[in-house]
Amino acid sequence: MSECLGRASIRFEQPVYIIESASVVGKKEGEGPLGLLFDLAGEDDMFGCETWEEAESSLQKQAVGLVLEKAGVSAEKINLMFAGDLLGQSIATSFGLASYGIPLMGVYGACSTCGESLALGAMTIAGNYAKNVICVTSSHFASAEKEFRFPLDYGNQRPLSATWTVTGSGAFLLSGNLNNGCYLSYSTHMSENEKSKMSKKPRAKISGITVGKITDYGMKDSMNMGACMAPASASTLERHFIDFKSQPNDYDKIITGDLGSVGQKILIDLLKEKGYDISDQHMDCGIEIFDANSQDTHSGGSGCGCSAVTLSAYILKQLEEQNWKKVLFMPTGALLSKTSFNEGKSVPGIAHALVLESCQAGA
Amino acid sequence: MSECLGRASIRFEQPVYIIESASVVGKKEGEGPLGLLFDLAGEDDMFGCETWEEAESSLQKQAVGLVLEKAGVSAEKINLMFAGDLLGQSIATSFGLASYGIPLMGVYGACSTCGESLALGAMTIAGNYAKNVICVTSSHFASAEKEFRFPLDYGNQRPLSATWTVTGSGAFLLSGNLNNGCYLSYSTHMSENEKSKMSKKPRAKISGITVGKITDYGMKDSMNMGACMAPASASTLERHFIDFKSQPNDYDKIITGDLGSVGQKILIDLLKEKGYDISDQHMDCGIEIFDANSQDTHSGGSGCGCSAVTLSAYILKQLEEQNWKKVLFMPTGALLSKTSFNEGKSVPGIAHALVLESCQAGA
Repeated sequence: MSECLGRASIRFEQPVYIIESASVVGKKEGEGPLGLLFDLAGEDDMFGCETWEEAESSLQKQAVGLVLEKAGVSAEKINLMFAGDLLGQSIATSFGLASYGIPLMGVYGACSTCGESLALGAMTIAGNYAKNVICVTSSHFASAEKEFRFPLDYGNQRPLSATWTVTGSGAFLLSGNLNNGCYLSYSTHMSENEKSKMSKKPRAKISGITVGKITDYGMKDSMNMGACMAPASASTLERHFIDFKSQPNDYDKIITGDLGSVGQKILIDLLKEKGYDISDQHMDCGIEIFDANSQDTHSGGSGCGCSAVTLSAYILKQLEEQNWKKVLFMPTGALLSKTSFNEGKSVPGIAHALVLESCQAGA
Repeated sequence: MSECLGRASIRFEQPVYIIESASVVGKKEGEGPLGLLFDLAGEDDMFGCETWEEAESSLQKQAVGLVLEKAGVSAEKINLMFAGDLLGQSIATSFGLASYGIPLMGVYGACSTCGESLALGAMTIAGNYAKNVICVTSSHFASAEKEFRFPLDYGNQRPLSATWTVTGSGAFLLSGNLNNGCYLSYSTHMSENEKSKMSKKPRAKISGITVGKITDYGMKDSMNMGACMAPASASTLERHFIDFKSQPNDYDKIITGDLGSVGQKILIDLLKEKGYDISDQHMDCGIEIFDANSQDTHSGGSGCGCSAVTLSAYILKQLEEQNWKKVLFMPTGALLSKTSFNEGKSVPGIAHALVLESCQAGA
């Protein structure tokens, strides 16, 4: 039985393992500081497709294909997928994942979607509702610019506060106790090869979540999304520390999704006002994924894909290698559309936090 | 402990009650056959707002406000919301619900979103992850036409296969055992007024779900969404009957969201091929909500709001009054965007099913 802490924080008593993960990225991401860690980097950002949207769909399709291959399981053995992206009506997901025939629940939390999908996946596993769940999210620089700002051909200038949407998709296979789930045919029908791969050490475990709320400080600048999202991440973090009775130094890292260098400063300042100093632990996927000096990405990377591929390629590796024992992973989302922006609305934020632990540490 | 049946079907052993619900609709819906049953019908479809999108946001805000008022609980006592709509980046939800300050998980399943949000809400309650959950979805005729087809001012003609997007929002308050949840402050801090309202008979209970998968028969006509969605609803229904070892006549009604009269025929034919005759039990919210002869709505109503307000105002009333004991409620979604449509893509469908039971019958 899992334990509810406070309003929307949950500690999972049953193990929720990230069995395997996969990351697929574009050319620029492949050339960045984490480039060699990704499973697959495209030669260009079209991935052999005819439109940017199809290219983004193919990212999700490849990421799911890779995670299944790496884990040695077939799509038929996945009970459920939680998936989403940034495009209107989540079409990267709809057209990317249909061919797998896996029951799907679509989620939307802007760039926090990776956190939301993993939180729901963990709830599903810990609740014994499913044996195997896949969580997948994506973003694509060109489809996002078209969706939210200007067509690339327009060649607009980008202010230094702007972030660069990551072209990438991360997929995660979650499971609990492999021999004691509800979908018994998995264990009895598995081939020896599948069993051996499934019995290897999982990449990490998810031991808790804090679900975020929409936080709106009235910012209206879609070229400064770090500032729009920082208040939401401060709100979720504060509630997390209170609900879990934890402190910043209980974590080796406190990792936000895509605040970038502008949002990072605001988050650290906002939390200092609330009595928490996270400056030693804070890390932002958007800052890690690009070299701001040589890659002209300004404030950093962003998009659903940013936190997803950084989690798969870099964060889980650190947990596997015991360099970190316990981290707080909190993707951050800016809730805007081109319609809301053009109608003069603000850009509210939302952020969902997950406690990730190294598997040697406790399980 | 809940029981998994098959791949993505769950039978809830712990009670999941729909404690209360609320429906807010537009003028045309208020004039339709179910008009007198809705909690609130607007005098026009702007609801005092300046844009169609703001009007849709205000629908969600009012529906949540009403369900809290009817149940006699305050927003602070809701652990979590599952919410979504049809607009790009779900802006009706983001701008409609922010002021409540309730932790939020955004969902997207096109017009199946009401079913998805209730399924996730039920999993959350049955898993003891939360004591009180609100599920809310909306659609608006004018914002949907702008988002998916033509601006209203263009005055395009609509083929007879087209459906009419319902202007409306339905909100549902889910809870389990009110005195034995994880969020104990609810029971200890409740006023007497709140306790008396919370102890009244719930409207219905959710006893099971079957999660749907994306189903694509290659249909490309955004003016015939019933045909696009019928194969997905047939797929989910067939899996539901197999997983729950049930037959059509185990249900008083089998209710789809918005197939309309064209989609209804296809669904019944597809299921006959699979050996199930649902012609006696089938009902479609889209067909019920408008009078096709006098309201010029062609194939019927559609949109997230269609199934949500029909569930709140009509279906739950029948279950409360014991006219029906057990129904299968299955909102249906067409997964398209204007971008995917303009790029020549097909319109895949998805449908999620919930077993709803009258509370006298078993709890």
